Amino acid sequence: MSKVRVAVIGTGRIGKMHARYIKYFIPNAEVIAVADVAWETAKNCAEELGIPRAEKDYRRLLEEKNLDAVIICTSTDTHAQIIKDAASAKKHVFCEKPIALTLKEIDDVLQVVNSEKVKFQVGFQRRFDVNFQKAKECIQTGKIGDPHVLKITSRDSVPPPPEYVKGSGGIFLDMTIHDFDMARYLLEDEVEEVYAIGSVLVDPRIGRLGDVDTAVVTLRFRSGTLGVIDNSRQAVYGYDQRVEVLGSKGMLIVQNPTSDTTLLSNENGTLSSPLLHFFIERYTEAYINEIRAFIEAIIEDKDLPVTGEDGRIPVVIAYAAQKSLNENRPVKLSEIAA
Amino acid sequence: MSKVRVAVIGTGRIGKMHARYIKYFIPNAEVIAVADVAWETAKNCAEELGIPRAEKDYRRLLEEKNLDAVIICTSTDTHAQIIKDAASAKKHVFCEKPIALTLKEIDDVLQVVNSEKVKFQVGFQRRFDVNFQKAKECIQTGKIGDPHVLKITSRDSVPPPPEYVKGSGGIFLDMTIHDFDMARYLLEDEVEEVYAIGSVLVDPRIGRLGDVDTAVVTLRFRSGTLGVIDNSRQAVYGYDQRVEVLGSKGMLIVQNPTSDTTLLSNENGTLSSPLLHFFIERYTEAYINEIRAFIEAIIEDKDLPVTGEDGRIPVVIAYAAQKSLNENRPVKLSEIAA
Amino acid sequence: MSKVRVAVIGTGRIGKMHARYIKYFIPNAEVIAVADVAWETAKNCAEELGIPRAEKDYRRLLEEKNLDAVIICTSTDTHAQIIKDAASAKKHVFCEKPIALTLKEIDDVLQVVNSEKVKFQVGFQRRFDVNFQKAKECIQTGKIGDPHVLKITSRDSVPPPPEYVKGSGGIFLDMTIHDFDMARYLLEDEVEEVYAIGSVLVDPRIGRLGDVDTAVVTLRFRSGTLGVIDNSRQAVYGYDQRVEVLGSKGMLIVQNPTSDTTLLSNENGTLSSPLLHFFIERYTEAYINEIRAFIEAIIEDKDLPVTGEDGRIPVVIAYAAQKSLNENRPVKLSEIAA
Amino acid sequence: MSKVRVAVIGTGRIGKMHARYIKYFIPNAEVIAVADVAWETAKNCAEELGIPRAEKDYRRLLEEKNLDAVIICTSTDTHAQIIKDAASAKKHVFCEKPIALTLKEIDDVLQVVNSEKVKFQVGFQRRFDVNFQKAKECIQTGKIGDPHVLKITSRDSVPPPPEYVKGSGGIFLDMTIHDFDMARYLLEDEVEEVYAIGSVLVDPRIGRLGDVDTAVVTLRFRSGTLGVIDNSRQAVYGYDQRVEVLGSKGMLIVQNPTSDTTLLSNENGTLSSPLLHFFIERYTEAYINEIRAFIEAIIEDKDLPVTGEDGRIPVVIAYAAQKSLNENRPVKLSEIAA
Repeated sequence: MSKVRVAVIGTGRIGKMHARYIKYFIPNAEVIAVADVAWETAKNCAEELGIPRAEKDYRRLLEEKNLDAVIICTSTDTHAQIIKDAASAKKHVFCEKPIALTLKEIDDVLQVVNSEKVKFQVGFQRRFDVNFQKAKECIQTGKIGDPHVLKITSRDSVPPPPEYVKGSGGIFLDMTIHDFDMARYLLEDEVEEVYAIGSVLVDPRIGRLGDVDTAVVTLRFRSGTLGVIDNSRQAVYGYDQRVEVLGSKGMLIVQNPTSDTTLLSNENGTLSSPLLHFFIERYTEAYINEIRAFIEAIIEDKDLPVTGEDGRIPVVIAYAAQKSLNENRPVKLSEIAA
Repeated sequence: MSKVRVAVIGTGRIGKMHARYIKYFIPNAEVIAVADVAWETAKNCAEELGIPRAEKDYRRLLEEKNLDAVIICTSTDTHAQIIKDAASAKKHVFCEKPIALTLKEIDDVLQVVNSEKVKFQVGFQRRFDVNFQKAKECIQTGKIGDPHVLKITSRDSVPPPPEYVKGSGGIFLDMTIHDFDMARYLLEDEVEEVYAIGSVLVDPRIGRLGDVDTAVVTLRFRSGTLGVIDNSRQAVYGYDQRVEVLGSKGMLIVQNPTSDTTLLSNENGTLSSPLLHFFIERYTEAYINEIRAFIEAIIEDKDLPVTGEDGRIPVVIAYAAQKSLNENRPVKLSEIAA
Repeated sequence: MSKVRVAVIGTGRIGKMHARYIKYFIPNAEVIAVADVAWETAKNCAEELGIPRAEKDYRRLLEEKNLDAVIICTSTDTHAQIIKDAASAKKHVFCEKPIALTLKEIDDVLQVVNSEKVKFQVGFQRRFDVNFQKAKECIQTGKIGDPHVLKITSRDSVPPPPEYVKGSGGIFLDMTIHDFDMARYLLEDEVEEVYAIGSVLVDPRIGRLGDVDTAVVTLRFRSGTLGVIDNSRQAVYGYDQRVEVLGSKGMLIVQNPTSDTTLLSNENGTLSSPLLHFFIERYTEAYINEIRAFIEAIIEDKDLPVTGEDGRIPVVIAYAAQKSLNENRPVKLSEIAA
Repeated sequence: MSKVRVAVIGTGRIGKMHARYIKYFIPNAEVIAVADVAWETAKNCAEELGIPRAEKDYRRLLEEKNLDAVIICTSTDTHAQIIKDAASAKKHVFCEKPIALTLKEIDDVLQVVNSEKVKFQVGFQRRFDVNFQKAKECIQTGKIGDPHVLKITSRDSVPPPPEYVKGSGGIFLDMTIHDFDMARYLLEDEVEEVYAIGSVLVDPRIGRLGDVDTAVVTLRFRSGTLGVIDNSRQAVYGYDQRVEVLGSKGMLIVQNPTSDTTLLSNENGTLSSPLLHFFIERYTEAYINEIRAFIEAIIEDKDLPVTGEDGRIPVVIAYAAQKSLNENRPVKLSEIAA
């Protein structure tokens, strides 16, 4: 196969973004169709990007013989069914995180995907960010020795609207899940126990929905490494995504990129430029790289850089964090059953 | 009073340092005597700095009419008795942290100090570091709005010898106590509950003594602000003391100072100079400033910048953290009784 | 016109780069043909990028009625003739710098371009770099007040081969010309007099060709602002492009971007990542933006952001700098006649 | 000799500063007398610092047998006579820069100092700044290979009053002289030729006195290394003292220290703290270190870190720069005769 024919299912902001990046940056893939229950958005996306086909029902696309793979960017509650349908139709599947909101659904999905022997990648795009990749390389090559403490800061610039929060599964499944994945990616170690505290400090409507908007989660890893993640739904200074790893031989930090490299000095001090606004800007290249990796794995029949298991475990950790928050006690991952 | 006459009790590293700083940097104070159970060190210190009197037993010094104040730098287990003796002799007291290792002793001490109406300051020198003071000023003047998340990183450069660990009261009473104080100092808020995890990753001998050398402590404040402290007994890159506060209007970071301002660029990147080695170098000015503040409070009969209560509460938090670590559960400060 | 049909003349590294960027990033332009005297490279470029036509002789392309504009990336000595031919054929022209190596040729070119009323843009891509644009905006909006001193550092990572140096017109026409343009762009002021010193410190072969590889040029502007540019053909730590402007109200610095945002701390200090390797990496977006601006000016019949005069003046400054170096004296621009 | 007895001649700001630093920081020296033509200031200084003797006429001090050395901080026009008198009285001499404003006087001074065999040090305190010392060490140990380009930025925070400018000898003798010394110190190479341009952009009164307030000076060194110094009498963002050296194997930068290490991030970007205000703050330790070195050289009868020749050559360079500015042409140091 020299060119992978792809359909994008769900043409909201992320779906359309993937379609555009494939068109412009991934020469060995081609979006041949899009689908969205809101058919107008699918049609508009197709027109704008010169994609020949736009459907309301993704199942019609799956009948297409020429189709090799699907990229699923629909709302989370629909992921499991679409993945199973696509896998059953022998299409390779890329799906935005999380796979599903219940472990039972996730396990169903993984079972189908495995038995159908299709490629399955979950959208943890941060693994494809050049800065975090450099960090991982430093750790793997022993530059900081054995990891002792991992710290992840992950803060949105602007809080989501309450409607979004309602269907999000809570801050841990929606937001921290990326950090749980980052922790596993960087350390190649597994979390055994978590403890979470949270507050509603940004938007009281988030609290009324039973969620928190500010959280600190501590992680105990199998190796004894300690971890801590701090999250906020609002960092007025921009999208803040940092990592720090203390090791026996040194420390590694991933800083935030800034919008430009200018410095302005006056009586008040020296002002450097703001952070990038949000994930779309910060992870542009990472989004491209993750699809590129998916496409290459298909073409060259290689293992994927994010497996189904990599999609499942962060959900387990998120469940444990939520249980910890609810019960105000440390929770072992082994307590979370499918 | 135009010049405060001071005795330094305990002339180990810290005691001698205070004596030297007073001589060179604090014109309105004078060290007129030193004492140490190891009399030779007291005598050497006195000779080196031109101090007229050196005793083995501090109680002989307390008889001295001319003496206004004592600076206590002995081992922690002797603090309570010396403070009480000095206060009873109507001497003002500066004492290195912690006041004592049990709350009962601390409460005894505070009772005596209060009833004798002497000034009493505990040695939390970090409050006098220009960088943390600037941070506090930024918070107080509303530059970052309401605090949402406080993060403190505090790592020693070199782990202590096992003998030191043995009498230290554990990492929380010995090391994190400074961070508990910093949290209270910066936020002017009180901790309600803590949760601590720890590991032995630096030196197994520390583990065999029942202590940990790596720890992460989460804090829940009355206001709902969340906090997290990470400690390590070993940061090979130097003494690491940072603070970060996320607020509703911005973020504040206190970075580490470096040994110089040079940058060296080559194929590998750009190398900036190492951090300062340890607390003696990092907090030189802070150590001077804290004694200067103590002396000024005596001369001008002002309130002290660190009160007896400020010395007590971090011990309570440390107890709670230790209980949390032992029982692997969040512990409320209200659970810690005298 | 909704889509500009473009031919790229000269399909070496830069020409091919422009063709690729147009294909992927500039939807309202289309490369319909390429030409190169080395026809194989034109053909390969066309095949790789799906461009329908590849010629040896650019004049055959100019006959094409459908062609709207040409992008000239041939060797400098051929620029003038191609520009004139293209302009005479009523094609808009984008030409890499410099327009030509003699002022007489440049003036001929400008006369033809003006009389034929085609758009003409010179390839000073740095004007389209987001960092320098931010700097200009700061200056224009008065953030630093009146400019007093301008400093430009411009250093190649790897020296060019002697063959390249031979036809380059010397360091000032080849390399510093970009800095002369940057000076005019940022300050919106004109250079009156220059003084240049130079050395051969990088590669003696460059010296044997009568050129220097290290140079410092001071500039006197009409307003009294002082400027200084330092150049080197070799910065082993990467492609170094910085600007600093001291003004009456503050200072502005444009720093170098780095390849990633990681920091690695150990006993030696803290290592940040290297600079980008060379101009291709550093100015990727700037190269895209300059062509985008050219295309938009054609479509919307707007003024160009880099005029013919903007292409001419830096050549005059470069001549003056070369004369200054040769005669070891300050040289006024008014001494340089066509 | 275990303690050097010193007199400070000239008790203005700098003289008093030296007296205070000796008292507090240099245990093996003692200020036994001060002198100032404005006797009141001498008396006040003596009282404040507990110095036993204050004279109007420095010559009376020189009669003192117990006196070992003098520190001369008077106005420049008096330096030569005082140095000669002190040397003739067999006192070691530390003198603030410049030795004198004419080379003839300087040569007289050096002749006397040499024939009387007293120690003689000129006040180039920047050589004793830890940051520049680290830079020198990097160069000496080959960390950047052979130096190719040296850049020095030296800007005052606040322009001097016109009265000061009047007697200053002009910007090059008053201000750039420190940079000329720094260039020689760092590179251990000699300047052969200079070219200077200047403008009056800060204060027209400086221009009316025949001086400039903004200058750029290029330097050609014997080795072929190129240098450039930029000066301004006003940097509103603080006292700006930076150095950069490009070498065959890397680049070295000395950055400015800041007043503290805090960073404040909000929508506008990240604000770091201002630079130190002026030379008194920036070079506190350097001022102490230079006197310490002078005292040690006396006690241990060692060579001085700044020789008489080191005091003379920067004056020659300053003369050449002034001549270059006046005549608008490069000037060789060999053109400057005593």
